[in-house]
Amino acid sequence: MLSGVDHVAIVVRDTEEALRFWRDTLGLEVLFTTSGQGGTVALTNLALGNSHLQLVEPLAEDHPLLAWLGERESALHHLGIAVGDVSAYRARAVAEGLVDAEAPLIAATLGRRAIFLDPTRTGEVVIEIIDQMGERDRTG
Amino acid sequence: MLSGVDHVAIVVRDTEEALRFWRDTLGLEVLFTTSGQGGTVALTNLALGNSHLQLVEPLAEDHPLLAWLGERESALHHLGIAVGDVSAYRARAVAEGLVDAEAPLIAATLGRRAIFLDPTRTGEVVIEIIDQMGERDRTG
Repeated sequence: MLSGVDHVAIVVRDTEEALRFWRDTLGLEVLFTTSGQGGTVALTNLALGNSHLQLVEPLAEDHPLLAWLGERESALHHLGIAVGDVSAYRARAVAEGLVDAEAPLIAATLGRRAIFLDPTRTGEVVIEIIDQMGERDRTG
Repeated sequence: MLSGVDHVAIVVRDTEEALRFWRDTLGLEVLFTTSGQGGTVALTNLALGNSHLQLVEPLAEDHPLLAWLGERESALHHLGIAVGDVSAYRARAVAEGLVDAEAPLIAATLGRRAIFLDPTRTGEVVIEIIDQMGERDRTG
């Protein structure tokens, strides 16, 4: 059911600073910038061939991701894995205890739906399962 | 020049334990197991659609990756990005200060060559640039 890497997300202290590396030095194209988690993070997606690189910048000084980041400038945070139909996947994941029965599908980028798996079941790796994107969305 | 996500690498304390999640629960197919870093880590690659999921298990009790892992069971460690010709890429990366001028190409999985970028230039994200794999290698 899982169809591949949708995005690799990196928490960054400062998006503009991060873009100096990812966009200006590595040459990845910025596809779009949006907000997430009720406006508490800024999301910037860059084209990375078969998937996206997503920069996640916490916007509030007390955002838990800042504590998670600690002294680091930026750090790999989660792996977004694409699936054909996240709603169908959610039902199976609930049955397998990979996601809480009450956990709603969340609004993700490009009008898609997603769930985060329970990190106590994933060896503490943060995994987002997300509706797969269209071919056109991958590269802008 | 960069053609996409080649692999996402996760440091694990115990490969068999990690496979209970990635292989048995998520359903990813194990493609191969090998060793890396002069035999000090075990590498297990699983098919993840457009790329690979790579489990990295440190084999020595004093391996630096164990200190890096700390109390965590497993954690996202590095992002492998594919390029058409890593040797050509290396020359450019040296010129841009992204990799040390003396850093050799290392032997990577599937008979390929790779370099790790200097983490002081990447915002501390560990990035491996690696020769792209053939279509057949992606899924076994």
